Amino acid sequence: MQRTTLSLTDVEQRARDCLLANGCNADNANALAATMTAAERDGCPSHGLFRLPGYTASLRSGKVDGKATPTVGDGAPGVVRVDGHGGYAPLALAKGRPLLVERARETGIAALALANVHHFAALWVETEAVVEQGLVALAFTSYMPSVAPAGANKPFFGTNPMAFGWPRPGQSPMVFDQASAAMARGEIMIAARDGHTVPEGGGLDSDGNPTTDPNAILNGGTQLPFGGYKGSSIAMMVELLASGLLGQPFSYEAAQEDNKDGGPPRGGELMIALDPARFGDAENWQAHCEAFFAELGGLEGTRLPGERRHRNRIENQNNGVSVPDSLLEKIAELTAG
Amino acid sequence: MQRTTLSLTDVEQRARDCLLANGCNADNANALAATMTAAERDGCPSHGLFRLPGYTASLRSGKVDGKATPTVGDGAPGVVRVDGHGGYAPLALAKGRPLLVERARETGIAALALANVHHFAALWVETEAVVEQGLVALAFTSYMPSVAPAGANKPFFGTNPMAFGWPRPGQSPMVFDQASAAMARGEIMIAARDGHTVPEGGGLDSDGNPTTDPNAILNGGTQLPFGGYKGSSIAMMVELLASGLLGQPFSYEAAQEDNKDGGPPRGGELMIALDPARFGDAENWQAHCEAFFAELGGLEGTRLPGERRHRNRIENQNNGVSVPDSLLEKIAELTAG
Repeated sequence: MQRTTLSLTDVEQRARDCLLANGCNADNANALAATMTAAERDGCPSHGLFRLPGYTASLRSGKVDGKATPTVGDGAPGVVRVDGHGGYAPLALAKGRPLLVERARETGIAALALANVHHFAALWVETEAVVEQGLVALAFTSYMPSVAPAGANKPFFGTNPMAFGWPRPGQSPMVFDQASAAMARGEIMIAARDGHTVPEGGGLDSDGNPTTDPNAILNGGTQLPFGGYKGSSIAMMVELLASGLLGQPFSYEAAQEDNKDGGPPRGGELMIALDPARFGDAENWQAHCEAFFAELGGLEGTRLPGERRHRNRIENQNNGVSVPDSLLEKIAELTAG
Repeated sequence: MQRTTLSLTDVEQRARDCLLANGCNADNANALAATMTAAERDGCPSHGLFRLPGYTASLRSGKVDGKATPTVGDGAPGVVRVDGHGGYAPLALAKGRPLLVERARETGIAALALANVHHFAALWVETEAVVEQGLVALAFTSYMPSVAPAGANKPFFGTNPMAFGWPRPGQSPMVFDQASAAMARGEIMIAARDGHTVPEGGGLDSDGNPTTDPNAILNGGTQLPFGGYKGSSIAMMVELLASGLLGQPFSYEAAQEDNKDGGPPRGGELMIALDPARFGDAENWQAHCEAFFAELGGLEGTRLPGERRHRNRIENQNNGVSVPDSLLEKIAELTAG
């Protein structure tokens, strides 16, 4: 595959131009371009420019309003409610985040309830933005059905990521962002494209039998949750927090209403932020937790979540990122109209 | 094994008598007896009378103060802080719970930060007590090292349960309570006692090799997290929320300070409560989520978390529970002094 190395500035500019050419206003284009660039920067191309064709499709079909202006309201003293009015999540998050941070500092714990958004981005980017303010954060969002509950053989849950972040003095936060599915759907698609098998436990075929054939999983089969019934419980929790609590479509409802244009369905997202200065150990929590990270990181064979991203970040900020030419050509076409 | 059937009233009385005879005051004895009886009632004997010898040992050694009076203070408008003053968790939870519920209703989201407690009970019992007030709840507590982080071969994390509960109209709440370990330690101990193997993925031997021999896991080996690195991330999150955030000992620190009397180490617990009436769908969230549970429960092969407990509850309230005579004899001895 031919590839071209682009600076992050160039990545962001191409994303912005394409979105502006397809119906986004500047605020939305900037927010989306920033989140895609953060993913490229940290070595997660599956959430980088790779998403641009999906964003464009959902703008062109009219499913998503690229000019939406999210509105921020109060649900309760500890709940910041943002109505995305049918736009994408990143601008809605950016609008709600300052108030979430303020409320968490005032009350010790606060929530951001995002409704009527289309979520297609990496959850860790959004979580890190809150954690960089010195807060602990949790985030949850559901998606379209692709994972069978434990014991079942039909997709029902979304891949349903949850993210958790912890602030660290003088360095990038510790953030993990993990799907409730055993494997990322993108990995299964790549295995299918390249003619490889996938590890056991990734999915079932259309008869409900375990399979390592990625095509069998994707065509009438189903992905499986990570860790059996425990991962399935996490997937259910994500549905309830990101959809049920916020009055937003569950994954199975999102699929019913979606127009299948390849872009993200309508849904919700929940973030919870906690201020560690308000939980009983304001003086010492940082040193105490850094000692914990040192113990954990010092065990042979372990790696803290996010370490690879942070290494990629330094590398890619200096040297740019390599993007397939086929994708760049596609983006150029989409930008030309 | 000879067994005797006891009414739940009898279970509770025997637990209370034993605790009172070993240094608990009435408040603490009542709170502990109630939580053990709830576990017996719901068919979880591993958290029922089975715990009484451990409670007794930690009273006799002086590690835990059976007469502790927990104090409730405010950390912040959304944070209820309870200092257990070296007693057991159940009374501290009972003292803090009313204010947690009140704050969650006022602010939409609130936290209960429990410090200086000894936790030896089932997390779902505590979670359900909050969820029965119509709130969504999350709970986290760490324990002594028994689980290796993904990639490592030494115990570092506790079994570290997290619980999540969702209120349901006219029926018992949906609550799951799951250890971050692939298997419950009690199951591995029972397999060792009975000469059985355990399923693959449960643990490593002292050389760091996967094993199905329960003795190899228990004697110098280690348990493993559920679901590989994703379960390991959950275990780490539990440590940070239940210990790091609250200024309480991490599992590895708890083991260092514990006197190894067989009772629970000192630590913390975090509960988060959310009021679904304050997140944007006050009118319809219950009906919407009941439709979700109906869809999920209607899939062939699935079962909602907690269903088995609720069936056991009805059965055991009517017919009592069967307890091994050996345990009843042990309890009688401990009560006699």
